[in-house]
Amino acid sequence: MLNRRKFLKTTAAGTAAATALATPAISQGKIEWRMVTAWPPNLPGPGTSANWLADKITKMSEGKLSVKVYAAGQLAPAAGVFDAVSRGAAEMFHAVPPYWRGKSPGIVLFGNFPFGMLAGETHAWMIHAGGQALYDEIYARFGLKGFLCGNTGNQWMGWFKREIKSVEDFKGLRYRSPGLAGELYRRLGAAVVQLPGGEIFPALQAGTIDAAEFIGPWSDAALGFHQAAKFYYWPGVQEPSSAEECVVNKEKWDKLSTELKQVIEVACMATYAYSTQEYIVRNPIALKNLVEKNGVQVREAPRDVLIAAGNAAGQIMSELLEDNDPLVKKIAAAYVAFRHSAIENAKYTETAMAKARELPYKFPQ
Amino acid sequence: MLNRRKFLKTTAAGTAAATALATPAISQGKIEWRMVTAWPPNLPGPGTSANWLADKITKMSEGKLSVKVYAAGQLAPAAGVFDAVSRGAAEMFHAVPPYWRGKSPGIVLFGNFPFGMLAGETHAWMIHAGGQALYDEIYARFGLKGFLCGNTGNQWMGWFKREIKSVEDFKGLRYRSPGLAGELYRRLGAAVVQLPGGEIFPALQAGTIDAAEFIGPWSDAALGFHQAAKFYYWPGVQEPSSAEECVVNKEKWDKLSTELKQVIEVACMATYAYSTQEYIVRNPIALKNLVEKNGVQVREAPRDVLIAAGNAAGQIMSELLEDNDPLVKKIAAAYVAFRHSAIENAKYTETAMAKARELPYKFPQ
Repeated sequence: MLNRRKFLKTTAAGTAAATALATPAISQGKIEWRMVTAWPPNLPGPGTSANWLADKITKMSEGKLSVKVYAAGQLAPAAGVFDAVSRGAAEMFHAVPPYWRGKSPGIVLFGNFPFGMLAGETHAWMIHAGGQALYDEIYARFGLKGFLCGNTGNQWMGWFKREIKSVEDFKGLRYRSPGLAGELYRRLGAAVVQLPGGEIFPALQAGTIDAAEFIGPWSDAALGFHQAAKFYYWPGVQEPSSAEECVVNKEKWDKLSTELKQVIEVACMATYAYSTQEYIVRNPIALKNLVEKNGVQVREAPRDVLIAAGNAAGQIMSELLEDNDPLVKKIAAAYVAFRHSAIENAKYTETAMAKARELPYKFPQ
Repeated sequence: MLNRRKFLKTTAAGTAAATALATPAISQGKIEWRMVTAWPPNLPGPGTSANWLADKITKMSEGKLSVKVYAAGQLAPAAGVFDAVSRGAAEMFHAVPPYWRGKSPGIVLFGNFPFGMLAGETHAWMIHAGGQALYDEIYARFGLKGFLCGNTGNQWMGWFKREIKSVEDFKGLRYRSPGLAGELYRRLGAAVVQLPGGEIFPALQAGTIDAAEFIGPWSDAALGFHQAAKFYYWPGVQEPSSAEECVVNKEKWDKLSTELKQVIEVACMATYAYSTQEYIVRNPIALKNLVEKNGVQVREAPRDVLIAAGNAAGQIMSELLEDNDPLVKKIAAAYVAFRHSAIENAKYTETAMAKARELPYKFPQ
């Protein structure tokens, strides 16, 4: 492009032609899209990976499709991004499927499920085992077309003002947890509260909630939860992984060229890796700071809590398999089948390998 | 260059300029690249993901950079793709870093290390924790620029004609295993053989080797190993993961536009996810067939084998930390530090979650 423009400016071929041609061809079909997000501006994790995704779409398309990111509340509130894109007030949103349980519990299964799939397994289901077609089917109801584009990996059980010694301690606990994760803790007796990410800290600080789970050390530290609750519990069995999604207004999607569709799809797939991998790097660094500089107490969740949570997860899935909505039943059945296959595969590979790394052998540290 | 020359040819006449411009600008600067691979044609796993990557680069760039894939032996032999691209006989290759141990053991660390990082962890190191800069540094010595673009996940220990009851059974075993994985089994007493993927089955069948590890059920079944050896062992501690790579001639790389560089980089990142996730789907299906239709005997490797392998892995890493080449030392030290951080992170998350999924609770199957 620069070559040609530079040439035109210096050629004797007529200044009128040169002026017209000085506009790059690519700018002639330029599309500008707004990505409304459910995140505070530049939130480490979901917010920063939304930025990265928008940048890659813009750059790979040479600006033919340029995407501008809006934080929650700028164009639409966190909980309103779904509706905004569904009705065409913005072209795309970046959020997580569990936020849309009120639209359909079937949507939530593409984001996470307690005792369900890990990050790679969820993506495997979507790309190679029929998940994407089901996700398309449910989102088509709302005039949407989505792609998973990130994953926090396995989350933490969260921040508690008091220690948890057994499952009894969940009784009456005012606990922030969204989607089906929240439903799980409700069945353990907690008084579950739904709040967008940006509203958790004030609630913890004001004492209107006793506990909260959001993501993991990196994102949680950015929101300051450790200033209001000192006990930090693992593992987050309510979210073995939690996928982020980039969802496009379907009418706008259908009008895109094949090439721009590929750019969005491949950029989302790359961002899934970029995002998932970033948590692996940032979480241990943030955790070290939380423990060493902020006096956070790291605790393993008691075994009876984990087993009770597993049973509650199984109950919730059993209900989804009998949901009134045939599509929800179909998604749940597909989830259960692929989860089984993925756990079988992990038994011989990732899980076995993770355990083997813990054997007594000498390795430089 | 092509843009400008084509424009120069047609601009002499006034109307010719308009005609030239009616042609989409994108077709004017078309580049065609050859991707030579280390794989048999369309090999399930590495071969198919090389095809996918080439297709995405071509489509996302709207054909400005079109990539054609060549199987091993078509333009260069499997073991010769590195040199072919280094000297510019082809523009890019698709292989795995362990194949280049003879160039430098430092390269191998970007592909896999026994008892080392899992697939996501390796990618995390590359993208977010300095791995890419070190990979660039070592490949610059050979006039190359590489990107990881796939991962088999944790592999299997492989195919054995006889059962392995203890580490003693590795003594004298003629065993195919490449790179540092092979070095590990050499230290357990095996007579390790290096063979490209396509040459393993004939060797097993002819009885010139007793055992071989390649990848896992999906790729291994395609090469027919089960027809020559019945015992299939897990976990493949020699390869907690094994990354595939797309490596470009650096001179050619440097001449690309910023946009095409982004297309290649993002396409490789997406393919890393696409490839890693595909093994999760295909492996359990292939395994079921191997067991039910081909009478394959699946066996867990004895604990003493795993511990001996862990100690051998630790020894190999200790030696790399003292390598004569300062760059190899630097890469090894970075690997050890990030591995430690990743295992610490996994302890609270993925590993803990994988174990929690094995607790006794009721979940629909």
